[in-house]
Amino acid sequence: MTEPWVHDGSWDPTDGRGLEALPYGVFVTGTSGPHLGVAIGDRVLDLTAAAPYVLPQRAHLLTGPTLDPLLAAGRPVWAEVRAAVREALTEERHRAAVEPLLVPARGVQTRLAFTVADYVDFYSSEQHATNVGRIFRPDAPSLPAAWRYLPIGYHGRAGTVVVSGTDVVRPSGLHRAGADVIFGPTERLDLEAEVGFVVGVPSEQGRPTPIEKFADHVFGVVLLNDWSARDIQSFEYVPLGPFLGKSFATSVSAWVLPLEALEGARVPPPARDPRPLGPLDDTGTEPWGLDLNLDVEVEGTVVSRPPFASMYWTPAQQLAHLTANGASLRTGDLYASGTVSGVDDWGSLLELSWGGQRPLTLADGTTRTFLEDGDEVVLRASAPTSSGERVTLGEVRGRVLPARQARSGAAGA
Amino acid sequence: MTEPWVHDGSWDPTDGRGLEALPYGVFVTGTSGPHLGVAIGDRVLDLTAAAPYVLPQRAHLLTGPTLDPLLAAGRPVWAEVRAAVREALTEERHRAAVEPLLVPARGVQTRLAFTVADYVDFYSSEQHATNVGRIFRPDAPSLPAAWRYLPIGYHGRAGTVVVSGTDVVRPSGLHRAGADVIFGPTERLDLEAEVGFVVGVPSEQGRPTPIEKFADHVFGVVLLNDWSARDIQSFEYVPLGPFLGKSFATSVSAWVLPLEALEGARVPPPARDPRPLGPLDDTGTEPWGLDLNLDVEVEGTVVSRPPFASMYWTPAQQLAHLTANGASLRTGDLYASGTVSGVDDWGSLLELSWGGQRPLTLADGTTRTFLEDGDEVVLRASAPTSSGERVTLGEVRGRVLPARQARSGAAGA
Repeated sequence: MTEPWVHDGSWDPTDGRGLEALPYGVFVTGTSGPHLGVAIGDRVLDLTAAAPYVLPQRAHLLTGPTLDPLLAAGRPVWAEVRAAVREALTEERHRAAVEPLLVPARGVQTRLAFTVADYVDFYSSEQHATNVGRIFRPDAPSLPAAWRYLPIGYHGRAGTVVVSGTDVVRPSGLHRAGADVIFGPTERLDLEAEVGFVVGVPSEQGRPTPIEKFADHVFGVVLLNDWSARDIQSFEYVPLGPFLGKSFATSVSAWVLPLEALEGARVPPPARDPRPLGPLDDTGTEPWGLDLNLDVEVEGTVVSRPPFASMYWTPAQQLAHLTANGASLRTGDLYASGTVSGVDDWGSLLELSWGGQRPLTLADGTTRTFLEDGDEVVLRASAPTSSGERVTLGEVRGRVLPARQARSGAAGA
Repeated sequence: MTEPWVHDGSWDPTDGRGLEALPYGVFVTGTSGPHLGVAIGDRVLDLTAAAPYVLPQRAHLLTGPTLDPLLAAGRPVWAEVRAAVREALTEERHRAAVEPLLVPARGVQTRLAFTVADYVDFYSSEQHATNVGRIFRPDAPSLPAAWRYLPIGYHGRAGTVVVSGTDVVRPSGLHRAGADVIFGPTERLDLEAEVGFVVGVPSEQGRPTPIEKFADHVFGVVLLNDWSARDIQSFEYVPLGPFLGKSFATSVSAWVLPLEALEGARVPPPARDPRPLGPLDDTGTEPWGLDLNLDVEVEGTVVSRPPFASMYWTPAQQLAHLTANGASLRTGDLYASGTVSGVDDWGSLLELSWGGQRPLTLADGTTRTFLEDGDEVVLRASAPTSSGERVTLGEVRGRVLPARQARSGAAGA
């Protein structure tokens, strides 16, 4: 292949933002409304503007203001659009039309790229579930009884999923403060580093989606910060699970990396015991473990580098589980892996500070147990490709704003 | 007032479907696409067709195919539309235009009346929570520790909310069968009789909605059957709450009764101890307990008549709680009360059969612990008005279809 024309200029092929990645997003500039874009290096291709030239037969799916029509179009169309984008950025014949449609990434504002339908959050890191069990329920077995039989999960609030860069107001809620129950700002605001999967193709209610159909339904991946107020969560969660401790905000990447870009990152999942039952049995199927390396950064300090390859349940099993009871999928359904924690690299401050008992020291010399007002959290991740280059997932970034409500009331608990 | 013209014919003012009720829905006939309708007696007013005559300045909100634009329009518009519908059905000057737009209710097919944004399910009947605690957790305190401090709730699956009349396929899932864990059709399929509240007016993320704003945000009420697979639920629910045991289907009324129609049903809630804290403190606010009487019918036999007035937490408190952490509201958010159980009249078969130990006998002489294939469940409810007439809520009806998956696999648990 001749040198791709887009390689001219400031694009660095080693930074994971090259032609192997090509994530999709939605952006606005000072002069244009929400257009679809494809990130390449430190620029964004205006896909909405380019589509009439490079992919006229699919341009109607790419008009914006969201990825929803592309998500719904299905795997053959996803491959066709990705191939056309790659041609547009490499073949000299497209250069004259396309080069003016590359805008500097730092000059655009990104928007939530798709309409979130239902949001589900799993709990599929054995190390995370074990750590949380030890911290929240020291007198009980650290792994819940069903944990090795199925990917435990719950529905979260779709309406409060926000795009990377959105500030998050410290939430208030009822929680224990010593012997009292009070209403007030959380004192244990946490991050959770997760990977989210974006469903494109819907399914019919009453008809489960088997493991083998994972890549026909799931369009791509985002990074996801499942902000958590631990004191609110621990007070409320028995017996119906987390609610207000999580529902105030969930941040996702602006850029959605197509599943196709992770083909070279597929690895076998860890050994499972007992062998998964029914729709969860992935014996003999193509593996959907993913060798992603995450970085968790608080105020500029990387506090953890959890490995996604250690996740016990794969995203293909999570999709099969989610629909095993006949629950339908919709375009825009988002499901997250659960906090990614490896043996030593944990994906939440709850674990890293062991329930607040062991403060972390940041590069500036300050310490943290949980997040303070003003703290910025950034999650990043990259993955190998079969060419030897790496690809980066879209980062997710968010800053904590102070609470808007004062503490009120107290009742003996 | 002179006799309303619509009173002619088959309308019976004592059946709760008169001018005090006027619920909204979406319907199709053999000849027309989805139109908005208002139920009156045994007929449906085609509101989409009538609006240009009786309410031209709001007709753009009433074109269908959903109630969404009307929901978003807010309380003054809700009052204006309701008043105009009442005039259209009573004042002789409208009769010539409107009478041809009344179609027999039995000739229409109803559709889900609004786009469900997020779906939340509460757990606000003290008797239900106590009963479930005793059955599921006989060795623990029957009420969860936080139960009297806040309305415990969780997010359910919005994408599987279906309209009354939709069949429900018996779900399969992992559950215990004796000493084994198996994947197969639920053997404990249950109903839950609930009241659902439909949010019209959205709110901003980071800004809680106080109790006093309840009637500014909530448009109306539906009946709701929270179908539950008890064996799947009890296996999966620790620690993140119900998931596949509930997410396969949730049925709601086709007809949404405006909150305004329940003005005469408002009653003080039960005494609460401790006094609710922070945003849950409703002392000195107008009461939002509701004197609704529910009927739970299985295969034609009324098996229970639970009283909604006994609910510990009101829908106004539930809304304040839901947003207390800054979670935003969207048009179409649906939140349900939780199973309605009074002291003796319980709203689920789990309770009525006491965990399957005490079969119920139906009118045809057959017995039930949980639901069998082919069973039809109907929930009905009515409420008093200040005029002395009663109003009915939209009924919710659904029939159980057999499972589509066979039992598979077994593992020692």
